[in-house]
Amino acid sequence: MIFLFTDYGLEGPYLGQVKSVLHQDAPGVRVIDLMADAPAHDPHSAAYLLAAMVPARTQGDVFLAVVDPGVGSDRAALVVEANGRWFVGPDNGLLAVVVKQAELAEVSETQWRPKNLSNSFHGRDLFAPIAARLAKEESPPGPLKPRETITGANWAADLPRIVYLDRFGNAMTGLRAKEIPDKAELQVGGRNLSKSRTFSDVAQGEAFWYENANGLVEVAVNQGRADEVLRLGIGDPVAVIMPSQRGLTWN
Amino acid sequence: MIFLFTDYGLEGPYLGQVKSVLHQDAPGVRVIDLMADAPAHDPHSAAYLLAAMVPARTQGDVFLAVVDPGVGSDRAALVVEANGRWFVGPDNGLLAVVVKQAELAEVSETQWRPKNLSNSFHGRDLFAPIAARLAKEESPPGPLKPRETITGANWAADLPRIVYLDRFGNAMTGLRAKEIPDKAELQVGGRNLSKSRTFSDVAQGEAFWYENANGLVEVAVNQGRADEVLRLGIGDPVAVIMPSQRGLTWN
Amino acid sequence: MIFLFTDYGLEGPYLGQVKSVLHQDAPGVRVIDLMADAPAHDPHSAAYLLAAMVPARTQGDVFLAVVDPGVGSDRAALVVEANGRWFVGPDNGLLAVVVKQAELAEVSETQWRPKNLSNSFHGRDLFAPIAARLAKEESPPGPLKPRETITGANWAADLPRIVYLDRFGNAMTGLRAKEIPDKAELQVGGRNLSKSRTFSDVAQGEAFWYENANGLVEVAVNQGRADEVLRLGIGDPVAVIMPSQRGLTWN
Repeated sequence: MIFLFTDYGLEGPYLGQVKSVLHQDAPGVRVIDLMADAPAHDPHSAAYLLAAMVPARTQGDVFLAVVDPGVGSDRAALVVEANGRWFVGPDNGLLAVVVKQAELAEVSETQWRPKNLSNSFHGRDLFAPIAARLAKEESPPGPLKPRETITGANWAADLPRIVYLDRFGNAMTGLRAKEIPDKAELQVGGRNLSKSRTFSDVAQGEAFWYENANGLVEVAVNQGRADEVLRLGIGDPVAVIMPSQRGLTWN
Repeated sequence: MIFLFTDYGLEGPYLGQVKSVLHQDAPGVRVIDLMADAPAHDPHSAAYLLAAMVPARTQGDVFLAVVDPGVGSDRAALVVEANGRWFVGPDNGLLAVVVKQAELAEVSETQWRPKNLSNSFHGRDLFAPIAARLAKEESPPGPLKPRETITGANWAADLPRIVYLDRFGNAMTGLRAKEIPDKAELQVGGRNLSKSRTFSDVAQGEAFWYENANGLVEVAVNQGRADEVLRLGIGDPVAVIMPSQRGLTWN
Repeated sequence: MIFLFTDYGLEGPYLGQVKSVLHQDAPGVRVIDLMADAPAHDPHSAAYLLAAMVPARTQGDVFLAVVDPGVGSDRAALVVEANGRWFVGPDNGLLAVVVKQAELAEVSETQWRPKNLSNSFHGRDLFAPIAARLAKEESPPGPLKPRETITGANWAADLPRIVYLDRFGNAMTGLRAKEIPDKAELQVGGRNLSKSRTFSDVAQGEAFWYENANGLVEVAVNQGRADEVLRLGIGDPVAVIMPSQRGLTWN
């Protein structure tokens, strides 16, 4: 299977044209839209989201990841093998968190370039053909690249920021919940929020944080919109206040 | 085939992660996005929409239906076999209208629970694996449940309300057109509307009701937006004024 | 493969119901959403977009194209074979530009009508079954029709208008870039724009035109929204100012 993770949006011809290439190059391989609304032009935020969104039981599958404001420039194309999955995308940090969080990860830089490469659509022309090859278990790419040389190699494993707002107004952070004690409070939008198990455990209209279904710290309001109640946007900072050290922050 | 009917939206990782489970559990089975914008958090309205949206010639197919504001609570998981289709979803009324309108319907309550069940994403963790099993013609679920005990069992077979606004501003009701005489008027948004065969049969800008392609009474404006012209929202009431009894309403 | 090109939107049940028919009628054939946000109710603009959006290496594939404000009227249903692809859609001009730009194109008018034809959803009831037949290499449709008799036969091969705004605010025109000299300026939104190779070649906030990844002249702003900066809408005129004749326009 090939999963698509992009900031292309579902509208327009972009995803359809990528899929056309994938199906031409890897007939019979299933293609799944994982996300098309990753943080636009923001590989830093998107990197934490991508690392969290990988579904269970996808060993051997391929993730085609494109958030690529530098398209048309000469940034390299990376192939990453991490925890048994393949990731293909630009060397702009988008794959750095997958690498950092993985137990096992290898990075290679592919020198392959197609004959017809547009200046503005490398998802279709460059990354999709590579993903199709990987899905067919063909030709892994070029020489190994030291992990510490890729863009974003020095980023932390967690990011205390809002990285995604879903259509219900819930705000995902780049923090993995398993790293945050249950008793910790989350400081966000000028408020200190406690953890709850799920929506129905708090009063209507109350804001809280919880471990979402992908393991991230998420800010939500029961039967309300956290983005509006707390005036949140992608990129906004959050801080973790540890239970034993009220006033000290984690970030 | 497995059809997805949810209020998840097409954005975000939700549908993609559900599909990942379906394809892992039922390889080779086709998955179709039927609707991802069912009335949000409103199983009552969504139930009438779901019952109308089932495509022709889908006997043997599976419908995974999730509009589930009670996710994380202990509401039961239902499997319904109705007119030769399988339906999987929460016991909150969402499947009640399918049952009520069906000539033949059996309801069972599955006690199966996965090992890893998140508190907020039962579509992926609970309902999708059941749907995949049904699609593989495996293990129909638990003991039969009396139809009159499910949530929504006492709902009427038709609902005189707006249940969906499409992107053109057309407003679907929960009324099946075959139950409404051609000469009846529809009272909605302070107006009394006559039936028309289709858009091009009325003047530009004129509001009317018609039988839509799924058999529902739908309110529309030729080359205009019914939601704006009549100021309609999901949940708004409509009334049927019978031809011989002007002033008496059907609802 | 069958590609869907419509103005239905991705929301609602429309695409899902079309796909249900395609998979019932042509099991195993892959279906790809190429675009669901073609210019609504505007077959003229959509025709130029469709002609540009056909992916490479799709010989033998089928394009189901529906932008059909006259649905329910008696406009004919066309099947076009152009440059080795099949196109199915209404005879309202939507397929006229594909025909005009093709080296080889044949047009036929299918008289086939299904038993159950709704008044408002011919994409599902009429065009999808024809597309499925073509995808199965069954029964090409009725007698050949002279190309000059179809609606839109007298349209030019290029259209100096905005035909699409993508979610980033970039504005596609109906002009093929290969027809426009590199030195030509594009007059649009009261401004004269020069050509650039791609976004990163101009200053932040600067407007320019370039050849997009589908070969069309596209208006963009580096790290900004062309639709807002230049106040553009679908249907707005553009003019080409030739390098040697400043003041003379191409359109």
